[in-house]
Amino acid sequence: MNTCQKRISDLQLILKEKDLDAIVLSRPLEINFLTGYFMDGVIMLITRQEAFAFMPKMLFDDFHAKVPFVRSEHSDKIREALMSKKTELGLKKAVFEPETENYLRGKYWKDNGFEECQGLTASLRLCKEGEEIEMLRKSCRIAAKAFEQLVPTIKTGETEIEVSNRLDNLMRSMGAKGPSFDLIVAFGQNGALPHHVTSERKLKDNESILIDFGCIYKGYCSDITRTFFHGSPNDEYRKVYDIVRKAHDEGLKALRPGLSAVEADKTCRDIISDAGYGQYFIHSTGHGVGLEIHEAPALSSRANEKVLLKKGMAVTIEPGIYLLGKFGVRIEDTALITENGCEALTAEE
Amino acid sequence: MNTCQKRISDLQLILKEKDLDAIVLSRPLEINFLTGYFMDGVIMLITRQEAFAFMPKMLFDDFHAKVPFVRSEHSDKIREALMSKKTELGLKKAVFEPETENYLRGKYWKDNGFEECQGLTASLRLCKEGEEIEMLRKSCRIAAKAFEQLVPTIKTGETEIEVSNRLDNLMRSMGAKGPSFDLIVAFGQNGALPHHVTSERKLKDNESILIDFGCIYKGYCSDITRTFFHGSPNDEYRKVYDIVRKAHDEGLKALRPGLSAVEADKTCRDIISDAGYGQYFIHSTGHGVGLEIHEAPALSSRANEKVLLKKGMAVTIEPGIYLLGKFGVRIEDTALITENGCEALTAEE
Repeated sequence: MNTCQKRISDLQLILKEKDLDAIVLSRPLEINFLTGYFMDGVIMLITRQEAFAFMPKMLFDDFHAKVPFVRSEHSDKIREALMSKKTELGLKKAVFEPETENYLRGKYWKDNGFEECQGLTASLRLCKEGEEIEMLRKSCRIAAKAFEQLVPTIKTGETEIEVSNRLDNLMRSMGAKGPSFDLIVAFGQNGALPHHVTSERKLKDNESILIDFGCIYKGYCSDITRTFFHGSPNDEYRKVYDIVRKAHDEGLKALRPGLSAVEADKTCRDIISDAGYGQYFIHSTGHGVGLEIHEAPALSSRANEKVLLKKGMAVTIEPGIYLLGKFGVRIEDTALITENGCEALTAEE
Repeated sequence: MNTCQKRISDLQLILKEKDLDAIVLSRPLEINFLTGYFMDGVIMLITRQEAFAFMPKMLFDDFHAKVPFVRSEHSDKIREALMSKKTELGLKKAVFEPETENYLRGKYWKDNGFEECQGLTASLRLCKEGEEIEMLRKSCRIAAKAFEQLVPTIKTGETEIEVSNRLDNLMRSMGAKGPSFDLIVAFGQNGALPHHVTSERKLKDNESILIDFGCIYKGYCSDITRTFFHGSPNDEYRKVYDIVRKAHDEGLKALRPGLSAVEADKTCRDIISDAGYGQYFIHSTGHGVGLEIHEAPALSSRANEKVLLKKGMAVTIEPGIYLLGKFGVRIEDTALITENGCEALTAEE
């Protein structure tokens, strides 16, 4: 039984536990997770006993050859073909995942007798296992190593876009498929906008550089932020940097199975608040990372208090302080929760 | 009045014509089209008289500074803030666009009294105008020029991924933000899969190369496919190539205002069918291109017969023949419909 067959089997176990007959899936991310095949245009119906896939003719030969453990068929009307199968098998209690569907497709399932049921496949993705961990680790290593090579090449006068393109190239030259999101390179006061859009702004002497970056390796995303100074930092920058560094380090130290997502956020936030900068830490402390750059669990003051960290979860710790018109400091690592603590996957070696 | 203000005003005109009080929008693509601001997390409420935007605090300062012509406010609960505004203004007949929403958000609007209404913003995007045409043209020129530079560098023994990365770098070095989709580089029999995933496969002497590529420039996508031979092609390849070339050329020649999307498809398909390869042309002839890599109109045998081409539409023409286990040939250009015909934006200069 390969990894994908195991996941399908785990999903079928969940169907039985929840007394469901079947689940329909249509987002490429979930299809990929269950089949290893990444392509828009395939939908699946998974029953307690079997897994079916429906696709246009154009995709059939390739899918059929690569995913022999799923019963695949092609059709001009894949939703209708799936509905016929549902009827043929007499599936009564069938569900779709509302968080993974677009409105029109979700409505189609709803109108055709499927009920909403959140989080079934997400629960399978929450704790990383086996080769997933290797791919995530490699994704993080590529990003961290590319950054190491990037830093000494950055020069006064070049644009944020130029630096971003160079980092992107470095990551791909090391085997990444591409960036895991639009890379953020922010010079000087641009760093004060957490979601700054990398621009034609040129680097001057004596200003801060914030780079938020990551790559995709075999589907798995990495996420890192580094802030550093190009020249001689002033006292305010040094002070703010040290506070964020401390919040980040304590945040990482606190991570372990059993810690709640709310406590993880509070650990970082308290340090920044106690230093008098609470109002300038304007986002949550972290988020899960995996096949998606943002996935469960959110490390946030607004998270459900019952959400506890578990071994195998991968999360970011990314406290920041943003001083509008001046600069911003954010320090972020991706960490894997281990038996007794965590492994910072993106830390310098 | 800037371009974005004009678009908001045009949308407000549509609201009046359709006797609607307001529309809610939440996808970054539409928000960007109407404000010039591209960022996930902003939602808008547009009434006949005004345009409101709601966003988290983190985005507010930046948005507010860059989009002064929209009334922006920040909130921890942006949907609720928008609903309060709707109530405050007594908006009765308000709609959302089901094709632009994910299921959960669309359902929220539906449950809160918004009705479904398709295609309002899409109708504004269908025919390209003014600076849009310049950006689309530039996007197409970058991709075409990058390809010209790429071809002489391709060598026996390198992988599809290496060639793809080099093309990506070339496009970005010319000002593109990045690729407009996952670039497809397919050597030899991989070309027979229209949606081949670029791989570690190495190039051998005497085989075909199919490259489907494009870039994003200021939000606008380009889309091109070229097929060529690395070495000396055999007779079968020559024959198939000539048929696809003829279908492509005749397809481009036929494009003009008033031609139906079905006829555009038929022009190409008939040439391939008459040559005896109809069953190997396993996808539709083309699609609209703009802010999205695939948008309206679809040039397909299954299109609504009433869909007619108009001046300002941008579409691809991309016939192909796919011989499983051997090779595939696809030739694609992005074309802008003009007063009397079309301009092939991606053709060699």
